[in-house]
Formats: sequence, C-alpha cells, structure tokens
Amino acid sequence: MVRVIMHGCNGHMGQVITGLIAEDDTVEIVAGIDVADNRENGYPVFTRLEDCSVEADAMIDFSSFKAADQVIGYCREKKLPLVLCTTGLTQEQLDKVQEASREVAVLRSANMSLGINMLLKLIQDAAKTLAPAGFDMEIVERHHKLKCDAPSGTALALANSLNEAMEGSYHYTYDRSQRHEQRDPKEIGVSAVRGGTIVGEHEIIFAGADEVIEFKHTAYSKAVFGKGAIEAAKFLAGKPAGMYDMSDVIG
Amino acid sequence: MVRVIMHGCNGHMGQVITGLIAEDDTVEIVAGIDVADNRENGYPVFTRLEDCSVEADAMIDFSSFKAADQVIGYCREKKLPLVLCTTGLTQEQLDKVQEASREVAVLRSANMSLGINMLLKLIQDAAKTLAPAGFDMEIVERHHKLKCDAPSGTALALANSLNEAMEGSYHYTYDRSQRHEQRDPKEIGVSAVRGGTIVGEHEIIFAGADEVIEFKHTAYSKAVFGKGAIEAAKFLAGKPAGMYDMSDVIG
Amino acid sequence: MVRVIMHGCNGHMGQVITGLIAEDDTVEIVAGIDVADNRENGYPVFTRLEDCSVEADAMIDFSSFKAADQVIGYCREKKLPLVLCTTGLTQEQLDKVQEASREVAVLRSANMSLGINMLLKLIQDAAKTLAPAGFDMEIVERHHKLKCDAPSGTALALANSLNEAMEGSYHYTYDRSQRHEQRDPKEIGVSAVRGGTIVGEHEIIFAGADEVIEFKHTAYSKAVFGKGAIEAAKFLAGKPAGMYDMSDVIG
Amino acid sequence: MVRVIMHGCNGHMGQVITGLIAEDDTVEIVAGIDVADNRENGYPVFTRLEDCSVEADAMIDFSSFKAADQVIGYCREKKLPLVLCTTGLTQEQLDKVQEASREVAVLRSANMSLGINMLLKLIQDAAKTLAPAGFDMEIVERHHKLKCDAPSGTALALANSLNEAMEGSYHYTYDRSQRHEQRDPKEIGVSAVRGGTIVGEHEIIFAGADEVIEFKHTAYSKAVFGKGAIEAAKFLAGKPAGMYDMSDVIG
Repeated sequence: MVRVIMHGCNGHMGQVITGLIAEDDTVEIVAGIDVADNRENGYPVFTRLEDCSVEADAMIDFSSFKAADQVIGYCREKKLPLVLCTTGLTQEQLDKVQEASREVAVLRSANMSLGINMLLKLIQDAAKTLAPAGFDMEIVERHHKLKCDAPSGTALALANSLNEAMEGSYHYTYDRSQRHEQRDPKEIGVSAVRGGTIVGEHEIIFAGADEVIEFKHTAYSKAVFGKGAIEAAKFLAGKPAGMYDMSDVIG
Repeated sequence: MVRVIMHGCNGHMGQVITGLIAEDDTVEIVAGIDVADNRENGYPVFTRLEDCSVEADAMIDFSSFKAADQVIGYCREKKLPLVLCTTGLTQEQLDKVQEASREVAVLRSANMSLGINMLLKLIQDAAKTLAPAGFDMEIVERHHKLKCDAPSGTALALANSLNEAMEGSYHYTYDRSQRHEQRDPKEIGVSAVRGGTIVGEHEIIFAGADEVIEFKHTAYSKAVFGKGAIEAAKFLAGKPAGMYDMSDVIG
Repeated sequence: MVRVIMHGCNGHMGQVITGLIAEDDTVEIVAGIDVADNRENGYPVFTRLEDCSVEADAMIDFSSFKAADQVIGYCREKKLPLVLCTTGLTQEQLDKVQEASREVAVLRSANMSLGINMLLKLIQDAAKTLAPAGFDMEIVERHHKLKCDAPSGTALALANSLNEAMEGSYHYTYDRSQRHEQRDPKEIGVSAVRGGTIVGEHEIIFAGADEVIEFKHTAYSKAVFGKGAIEAAKFLAGKPAGMYDMSDVIG
Repeated sequence: MVRVIMHGCNGHMGQVITGLIAEDDTVEIVAGIDVADNRENGYPVFTRLEDCSVEADAMIDFSSFKAADQVIGYCREKKLPLVLCTTGLTQEQLDKVQEASREVAVLRSANMSLGINMLLKLIQDAAKTLAPAGFDMEIVERHHKLKCDAPSGTALALANSLNEAMEGSYHYTYDRSQRHEQRDPKEIGVSAVRGGTIVGEHEIIFAGADEVIEFKHTAYSKAVFGKGAIEAAKFLAGKPAGMYDMSDVIG
C-alpha cells in the first residue's frame, strides 16, 4: 500500500484525487494539507505543512505556486518523493526543484493525463518522419470559457515537443490576422478556442500534400489528471533521487 | 440549354467550370473571355470583353477585382444576368454592383459551395436558440499553406452571419495569446490553421455547459465552388433585375 | 417558482436533477418518489406514488418503463403535467401516453439535451436541401463501453428525423461487412462506436461531390439531460392538455 | 535517375503516377504496360508485358490481380525490383510473391500513403501503452459511395496492426445492432461510413476513463497513393532480394 500525503487536499483536484484513491486499494492518503480544514476526508488534515509528521511514501502537490518553496523544502528534508502538479512556478522555483532532485525523487508535469504524455512522445516520431517530407505542423486547443491563459500550458508543451524533435528550428505563431503572407515552413501555428465548460482538447495536425494526419486528445473530466498523479506517486515511491517525468511512468 | 459566357475562362476556376459544364447537358459555354487565349476550350475565346457579342443567358465571372468595373458595365448594358464570384472588390465597386442590380439580375457570394451557403442560414437558427441559453460561439478554419489572408473570407462571412442573427451585438477575436483574461460572452473567436494543400474547412462551434454542437464544412476540391457558380447561372437566367445570393438558389 | 415532483429521485438522473434544481431559484422539488428512501435530498420522499398528495406544477419522470403505467395514471388523475424521460416504453404504454395527453400536458423525448433537440430540426432543413442535390446521409454515434443497445435511441431518432424530412423514402443500414455492393442512395448508414466512459456523441454526415457537411453533438456529462428535463417542466407548468416535445420548449 | 516500368499505365492510378513522375527529376518512366495503348504518355507503351525489354530499375504495378502472376514472373526473371500495389491477390498468388522475394526485391502494401504507413507503426506503440491501462480500441473509416467492400483493406490493416501489438488476443466486430450486450474488452469495433466522393479517411480511437485519444488520416486525393508508390520504387532500386514494406521506405 503506497502512502500518500495530499498537499492541497481540499481544492478541486485534491478532492478529485481523494475520491479516486478511496476506490483504489493499492494506495491510501495518510494525511492532507490545506489552508482550510473544512471537509470530511477520512484522513487527518493539517493546516500547516510543518505540523505534519506522518510517515509516507510520496507527496502529491496540487496547490498554488505560492506554496511551492515550502513543499520543496519539506520533501527535500524528509527525503519524500514529490509529484509536483502545480503550474506557474517562477524560474527561481524551477531551479529549486532541480536542486532538490539531487537529493530526492521529483516528478513534474504540465499535464498528468496518460494520453497527453503518450502523445508528447508519439508526435516526436511523427514529426521526424513527416516534417522532412514537407508536412506543416499546427496545434489547436480548446478549453472552457473561464480559462485566462492562452495557449494552454499543454499546447505549449506539445509545440515544444515537436520543436525539440526538429532540433529547435521552429518558431510559434498565435495570430495570422495581422499579416498578409504565406505560412513559413518553420512555423508551428497554435490556436486557442474558448467556450462553455470544455475540460480540455488538444489536436496536433500534420498537413501535407493531399494528406493530413491528426492526433487528438480529449479530457472529459479532471479525473484524468488525478489518475495520472496517483500513478506517478505509485511509481515514485521508493525511487532514488532524480528528476522524473510522466514518460518514465508510462515506461 | 442555358448559355453562359465564362469571364476568366483560362484561370484555375474558369478551367474547372469549363470541365464541369462539358459534362452537364443543361448548360453550355458559348464564349470565354481571358487575357490569354492559350487553351483548347471548345468554345470561342475573346481577349477583350468588348469584342464579344455572342448571345447568352448569363455570365460567370471568376477573374480579378481589376476587371470588375468592365464586367459590371458590360452586363448592365447587355442586360446579361451576372454571377460575380470574384472577391476583394473595393467599396466603390460594391456600390456599382448594387447600382447595376437595379437594371439586371446580379448574384454575388464569398463562397459558392452549396454546403457553406446552407450553413450560413442554419447557424443563424442555431445561434438564436443557443446563444441566449449561454452557449459560446467560435469558428476554426483550415486552408492550404499558400493562402495569405487570415481568417478566410468565408470564416468572416460565417461570423457575420452569427453576429447578424444576434443583432450585431458580438465582436471578433483573432488572438488570445496577448491577454490574460476570461473570454467575453459577446466575443466570437476566429482561428486560422494553415498547412499542406487543404482546400478549405470551416467549423462553427457552439460550446455550452457540458454540451458542444459543431457544424463543419469540408471542401475536397475547387469543383464545389465551380458547381455552385453553374447552379447560380442556371438560376439567374431569365430572372428580373435585382440583387440575389446563393440562398435564393438553394431555395 | 415552478413546483416539481421528481419521480425516480434517488436514481442517477434523479440525483443530477436534484443537484441542478438546488442551484436554480425559479424551480423547486416539492416531493420525490423512489423505491428506496436512502438519501438526504432536502425534500420529502415517498416510496409509493399513491402516498404523495403534495401540490405541484409538473412531474419529471426518470425511472423505469415498469413504473410508467402508474405514473401516467397518476398525472392523468391529478391533471399534473408530465415530463416523461423514461425510455423503452412498450407500444401499449405509448398508446396510454397518447390517450393521457387528451386530458393533461405530456412531453416525451428520447434525448432531453437542448443541442440534440435543436439538431433534430436543423438536420431536416439540411436534408431537404442536400439530399435532392445528391448528398448521402450517414450517422455515427459513440457511447461508453457499458451501453448494451446499438445504435442509440438518439441515433435512431436522428435517422427518423432525416427520413421524415424525405417523406419516409429511406431505410437504415447497420452493417456493410456482409455484402459487396455500392451503397444505395436511399440508405442511411448508422454506425455505433463503443468505448471507455464516453457520455454520448452523435455525428450526422452529409457527403456529396467533393463536399461534406457534418453536424456533431457532444455531451460531456449527464447534466445536459437533466437541464433539458427541468426546462421542459418549467415550460409545461400551466399548459393545456396535449402532446408536446422538446422542439416546443426550444421555440 | 531511377528508371521505372509502369504496369497498368493507362488506368486511373497509372495516370496519376505518370503525372507525378513528369514533375519529379529524380525518376522517369521508361516504359508503360497496359491492355489499351490509348493515351499520349510520352513513353513507349506495350500491350503485352513479354514484348517489353526496356532496361529499368524498378516496376510499379497498379493493375488487376488477374495480371499478377505474369508480373511476378517477369520481375523474377529480369531481377527487376517490384512495387506491388495491386490488391485482392489470392493466397496462391501471395505465396508466389513470397517465393519471388527470395530472388528479387519486392514491396507490397495495402495503402501506399506515407501517413497511413506511419500510423500503422505509431498505433502499435499507443496500443501497448493504452490497452493495458483499460482503453478500448475502435476504428471508423469513411470512403466514397462507389466503394463495394467494407471495411476497407486499410481499416483491416490498421486493426491487424493493433491486434499484432496485443499479441493477437483481440477480435473484430462490424455490427452491434444485432446483439444486446456490453462490448467485450478484447473487441476492436470497425465501422464503415460510405458517401459522396470521400477519397479515404481512417480514425483509430482509444477510449478510456474520461479520456479519448484519436489518430486520424485523411487522403484528399489519390495522388498520395501515387507518391508513396514512387518513393517505394526509388527505395527499391538496387536493393537485394527480399520482402519489403512501406515501413522500410519511411525508415
């Protein structure tokens, strides 16, 4: 039984993960941390991280970048493997994560879903075959109307993955309405659609001569992100210090 | 047998239409006009419009906005119904078209395909039902890598159609990467994908609470635009003066 | 405030509707009926319909076809407008519904979502324009792996809607693997995809010469069906006897 | 300059390839074979294969399974690498192909497009990751209204590819309308849509818990199949005896 400390346990994703773990008998939450202890979770909740001395095999963090320093420090000190799902970290914080990974196992990912993480790898294979054959690469993402940032972090991660496969020779375009010229072969267009309650859809398009290949991922609920985090925690338990990502979990 | 004068007969669309009419025994091309008389079309070709005195029932124009003044003048003088498929006309030219329509039947359209013209109407019905129920409206179009303008004229016509159904209360957004805020309920996002040889795809998305409705049109070749122009010419033959559009042809 | 009796209140859809109505201050549930009174709903629950004498403006029924006779009898006697969402009714029961509608307002629908009901109308307009122009009509639906029937009731309702627009001249095809011949122009192919937890997707395809038009509906959760039922109850309250459907609600 | 003999040069695909090679200066057609010598191809055409003694580096065959025996015999005798695009070969003929490949280089493929051949590989990687995680696998293909067989050979090749990745433990389902039961986890549903002039679309769907991943290939014209055949001929020129397929060409 893998023992998890859930940091941010009373937030939306914390509750999703609490529900998922309740139905999984290979993993349990042994403690939760949150600023507000206002829910019946079936495990002890600490409002201050430093008060928590419960023994565990991994921590999952789905909270705010503001708490990241403390989370990293705690895991480093306790040698507690950390699944870091919080986004929006500053460069300084990212450096601290890197540093901590010399002493403890850390896994960080922009998107915890199994499907997206598999696509991050597969589209690199596709790009290496198709781009030299003259295929153009484009990304379209769709999210709910409340999402403020565009394109999504996942869309950018996908674009970076394509670009990395092409040795960094591509650049990104977010708007074509302000120019009047043909697309640059070395450009990856990234479009952002917003509306309703769409959880998250990402399409990677390879458009060639009379032939188009598309890869599409649709998330129907936030549970997919929770599940990925749980799998990551199971994977990380007992692992040596180092920087891991979801592709290690997928194997 | 409807007799057509094909203006721009040796251009790409002129040739497509020449091919389509050759296989249709309810219509024939009785004369072509083009700056270059360099093809075997099976009908007489005039390099100057004023030299053409062949009797006809309608003219189809798929040439350049530069020739539009002359085309409009010719049809007005001869009382020859005109299917005007050329895009990019100046406001002055559009006024002339309007003026001419008092004396001769004129049909003008940004996109001659049956499907797009049907959607221009249907999405208005959809908008009137869905927008008041809180659905957000978005458009995504895809075209080949050589297309310089974005969004496409057809995408804008679709957005205008939605906006008209909502009494002009919406505005359009082409880029979300430069801001950090939630989408405005009164905004129609229009995204442009470019790549390969894609002839033309348009998607109209209505995204609501846990429910999305999409309308999609795919053109597989330019023949669809040619076919629409031919149907329009058949329809216009013998019609009284007036301004028509493809929705009249569809009925 | 529209007062609703929720028949089947402790089933999955009954709970979805209970949750939705809790957040809507133009409607309230004044009583629930279910075989098991095992939940905290915030309204009285009766395990036998005949024990319920609470005054109301409409009943929503999301239960089993086995209970339908009793539900219809109750509403008829009490002159209580009925939103009948239960599927799988026998022909005898359908006749009883028809009979009851002479004395009380009844609304019955295979799919309560706003989007599907709008499409049921719009695709008739599309069929009338496109089928005579030689477009072929096909439907593809996708549902979760647990769904036993195929094609879905909604897919059949969509096919019936297309067929009705064409005056009943079409027939349906569910399998092409057992024959070796071209598609009949008067055939509507209906394909069923099953997998994962897909809530429900329906695609209506019009395929013509070099041109395809698609209408697609995606439900992301069962809440969309609950919302439709609530809108229907609000609409039906105070309406005279008669048979209504969701297209009346949409207006 | 790779020298090609085009067997079936006056058929539809033969003409497509003739057009494509005319614009490619790394390859040329040195002779064509066809029952009818009725076109201006710009190269000598023989109506009987045995009359052709032109020297070449490879043969492309896009004709009929009836001619296959002769084609195989010819290439074997002349040690001429063979790109065999003809489908519908009998088992006896397939055995002859295998036998010939001991003496000459042979490449056979159900679908010559770069995109499909790449997907045949990538979906195996996807299946190995996703199927053990509980994802269901489905295929939907779309073709024009004249296509008699269903599902398409390419859809079956894709299903076989998935099944091979899972060590042959899956079976295929073409019709769900005649049963009333949940989908078997070991079943791959294959649906065939027919309509209009659709050249060919294939979708491979992995549906899991709240997450769907799709791979889609769209062919916009038959040129994509011609291009693949030409690439295959270039690749095969000078290769030692053996059985090759498009994945060797893609590298």
